[in-house]
Amino acid sequence: MSTERDRRTIETETLYDLLYRRRDVRGEFTGAPVPDAVLHRVLAAAHAAPSVGLSQPWDFVVVTDLATRRAFAAHVQRERAVFTESLDAARAARFAPIRIDGVLASSLSLVVTYDPARGAPAVLGRHAIADTGLYSVCLAVQNLWLAATAEGLGVGWVSFYREPFVRDLLAIPAGIRPVAWLCLGPVTALRELPDLERHGWARRRPLADVLHRERWQARPETEAETQAEAETQTQP
Amino acid sequence: MSTERDRRTIETETLYDLLYRRRDVRGEFTGAPVPDAVLHRVLAAAHAAPSVGLSQPWDFVVVTDLATRRAFAAHVQRERAVFTESLDAARAARFAPIRIDGVLASSLSLVVTYDPARGAPAVLGRHAIADTGLYSVCLAVQNLWLAATAEGLGVGWVSFYREPFVRDLLAIPAGIRPVAWLCLGPVTALRELPDLERHGWARRRPLADVLHRERWQARPETEAETQAEAETQTQP
Repeated sequence: MSTERDRRTIETETLYDLLYRRRDVRGEFTGAPVPDAVLHRVLAAAHAAPSVGLSQPWDFVVVTDLATRRAFAAHVQRERAVFTESLDAARAARFAPIRIDGVLASSLSLVVTYDPARGAPAVLGRHAIADTGLYSVCLAVQNLWLAATAEGLGVGWVSFYREPFVRDLLAIPAGIRPVAWLCLGPVTALRELPDLERHGWARRRPLADVLHRERWQARPETEAETQAEAETQTQP
Repeated sequence: MSTERDRRTIETETLYDLLYRRRDVRGEFTGAPVPDAVLHRVLAAAHAAPSVGLSQPWDFVVVTDLATRRAFAAHVQRERAVFTESLDAARAARFAPIRIDGVLASSLSLVVTYDPARGAPAVLGRHAIADTGLYSVCLAVQNLWLAATAEGLGVGWVSFYREPFVRDLLAIPAGIRPVAWLCLGPVTALRELPDLERHGWARRRPLADVLHRERWQARPETEAETQAEAETQTQP
């Protein structure tokens, strides 16, 4: 009994340390190579995720080719400009120093896709909610993220892109949807604060704010107030 | 250096053990209570997930009320009948013994929702892909799942439901989307095989089948063939 108890304590402590240490990395990649065995363990961890109807509807494209990554990085910069134009002057100034990707600085990219045809037509658990297949792919991404963190690697999820661009770039068939472009590789360190908090873009909220008992409970404060508060209190 | 190396080894071993041991539980719940401190740690783990633009767009509704859970369980059974009607005779027979939820057998339910208004209008990283907010919610679910597993609890994701039903049942506002209904609680054990594999519904595929280098590579076999093969080789 005591051994079981100890094992569980080590498990929870190790897992929680990982969960809280994990970061969405942009600026800290070293570019050093990822050993094949490590990459394989990280991908196998993703592949061990739960999936609706055991459909495992994901695919992984490992991209190291520099020309491909350069083309994607240029696309990301164009989308950065699109987003900047949607911001008012104050938000645009706050956004300016924030890095949104580490595509060229990281060792490699992993593109994770969703194939709705896998296991179809009768995917158990998907008849009432079409998006459950997409949800499964995201569970795999989080497995991958935690495995990489445990292996001493950083992961950065880039989402400043248009799906058709990625589909064309990687010759992904029409029915298959790109879900995540992840940058992966060794890092100098994982930062203690998320970049967006460090730059005063957003602030994490307490768990109590998102917790409800038995049914939905309306909250007094609004989003706008929370954001305004963050902008007042946080140094850029 | 040696200490750092050892720590990492313990981390990876502990995490991989958890990732592979985790199951989607239906039949093994004991119904024993979940201590408040444990539930809090599990929810905090979910809340520590990465999110697009640091928007943390999730909410958690803890449901213990038996009347609520009974109403949901009845709805799930009606959706089971809907799915059964979509199957041919052979698949329906295979589906018949498979449990699809542990709503009443588990200790409690956790409903995870998505609020697209959180952090809006300018959610950093969402202007080009609206679904990234939904993706964030799923990352939180996988954190929760792994934390619960480390704490010795089982989790079962139920997806035989219509979203409007859950919204009405829990008084969830119109703009907010239910993403996951999770059953949680102590279990007698976690099974070695996923239920759907044990019952011959589906078989997990090797990682090599979903791995691509540099660009998408077409696979020779089709889904239908893989499924037919699984049905031939697996005992029901």
